[in-house]
Amino acid sequence: MRTNPVIAVVGATGLVGSEMVSVLNELKLSTSGVRLFASEDSVGEVYRVGSEEVVVELLSEESFSGVDIALFATSAELSARFVPLAVKAGAVVIDNSSHFRMQSDVPLIVPEVNSHLISTHHGIIANPNCSTIQLVPVLNAIQRAAQIKRVVVSTYQSVSGAGKSALDELWGQTLAIFNQREMPREAFAHQIAFNCIPQIDVINDDGYSHEELKIIDESRKILELPELRITVTAVRVPVLHSHAESVNVETATALSPAQLVELLKGRPEIRVYEDPREFPMQLDATGNDDIHVGRIRRDNSVPHGLNLWIVSDNLRKGAATNAVQIAQALIASSSVH
Amino acid sequence: MRTNPVIAVVGATGLVGSEMVSVLNELKLSTSGVRLFASEDSVGEVYRVGSEEVVVELLSEESFSGVDIALFATSAELSARFVPLAVKAGAVVIDNSSHFRMQSDVPLIVPEVNSHLISTHHGIIANPNCSTIQLVPVLNAIQRAAQIKRVVVSTYQSVSGAGKSALDELWGQTLAIFNQREMPREAFAHQIAFNCIPQIDVINDDGYSHEELKIIDESRKILELPELRITVTAVRVPVLHSHAESVNVETATALSPAQLVELLKGRPEIRVYEDPREFPMQLDATGNDDIHVGRIRRDNSVPHGLNLWIVSDNLRKGAATNAVQIAQALIASSSVH
Repeated sequence: MRTNPVIAVVGATGLVGSEMVSVLNELKLSTSGVRLFASEDSVGEVYRVGSEEVVVELLSEESFSGVDIALFATSAELSARFVPLAVKAGAVVIDNSSHFRMQSDVPLIVPEVNSHLISTHHGIIANPNCSTIQLVPVLNAIQRAAQIKRVVVSTYQSVSGAGKSALDELWGQTLAIFNQREMPREAFAHQIAFNCIPQIDVINDDGYSHEELKIIDESRKILELPELRITVTAVRVPVLHSHAESVNVETATALSPAQLVELLKGRPEIRVYEDPREFPMQLDATGNDDIHVGRIRRDNSVPHGLNLWIVSDNLRKGAATNAVQIAQALIASSSVH
Repeated sequence: MRTNPVIAVVGATGLVGSEMVSVLNELKLSTSGVRLFASEDSVGEVYRVGSEEVVVELLSEESFSGVDIALFATSAELSARFVPLAVKAGAVVIDNSSHFRMQSDVPLIVPEVNSHLISTHHGIIANPNCSTIQLVPVLNAIQRAAQIKRVVVSTYQSVSGAGKSALDELWGQTLAIFNQREMPREAFAHQIAFNCIPQIDVINDDGYSHEELKIIDESRKILELPELRITVTAVRVPVLHSHAESVNVETATALSPAQLVELLKGRPEIRVYEDPREFPMQLDATGNDDIHVGRIRRDNSVPHGLNLWIVSDNLRKGAATNAVQIAQALIASSSVH
């Protein structure tokens, strides 16, 4: 890896892709150039990257020549098709889709938890699911201190996790209710305005949604705890940005709320709310990179239990920021060698 | 108790009180008259009860002469003051406030679970918290079949649980966002439009909100399981009506999702969603009396575990309907003697 790599963003005009461009600017990655790829509809759009104006190019099989790091913000289908081409052309891919995440030769990275595995890549590094990313740093801190026995998660996920059309749909449905017009219904199978939908992604015959299984499987992989006892209920709520999670953790040894507060204070990616009367909300997390943790309190239904409320911006730390941080770590680790 | 009692509704013009009047009409309770009481602001309003038009009267210390059953839909403060007066005047009170619920000489009733305790009253019967009412019939069925070891609940509660002003505030804040006007903020301490607030009622020093403690304490009392291991996180979501709950239950003995479906099918108050791809939402529950239970699936993180999604209209079965059903049972039990 060059210390000043050429970085490509694939799917650069979507919600996650355009946020990746913003984060590249904010974190001031030094590059030898940034290239932006998208589908035909977006070709010709112009984004400011550093001091330059970059024109969006059409994604094609020949896009990756000369690219050192490719950040993919595409669907699982598009990633399946184009990621191998990027790798073949010599790029290291950081892929935000679910397609490669569970492959054993693909590291799945949240830098604050397992950056030591970045160097094990064979061309592909996977960026985890948004709901996983905000959960595992907290579980990692608890595991180290008191060993996790079991985790029960219920999520409150915003619509931006389902893309631009979902944002438009919550907005449009809400307006339609006020104006007593017919309600647009395309992004979601059910009304999301003033309603919660307890389904994210496809539901299997055993009753679990793919989103729930992703959080379970990816948490186990990232924490390197393949037997971690964890169960999840994933729910879409009528909120535009940021995901919240109600997390119950049972530990093997004692860990008081005050001790956990101290542990989390030591982690730069986490903002802790110590006063029980203050707590993070989705509005507080939107637009920043922190993982906000509040409502930390003892669960008296088990010998050693804690309840927590974790909130983070699903487009920032939950997607774009984490991917760019992986790129940053990749460049830093290469420049050390 | 007379078989055709005089029934009073106290706080008749609030969200719960006016719903009580509707339910009295729908369930066709035979009475010798219905009287409606409220504060000065609402005196003179007219409600149709059966074939009669009933004028709202001013609530006073002398209101209860001749009243057989008084349904209270008032604040804890007003109930504390007026319920003893109603009892002294000879009425049996069914109180929707939290004030008397945990008193040992006051039965706390969900008729489908513990109607056998109605006759133990000394003038006051308490109606449980809305989030408790929709939870305990399901836990009751599970306890009987497989003995509960532990329950973890996260709620998704609508704003109507906080009264008319809260409904207006969600509506008004949402409109203000569209119109880029200043946002009304009185009913809630934080913005509720497009946001979740993980606080319902006051939060104690130990981090628990009163709403969470109500669900824990009341569930134990109603189920007659004073040692029940249960923990709760209560969250307000930007939904107008009905509460949803993500419920994780660990049992002592095996209970499959299919077995639980069969058990719940046998309970008239519950509507079960058997197909894992169908599930109840708050929009489905609003305006009807069912407790909707879906997303029933095995939790593989424990030997015997289940995840459930429970939804019900907090103003109907969660408040008014349950109170009127208690009155119904009270009348029926008296007429048997």
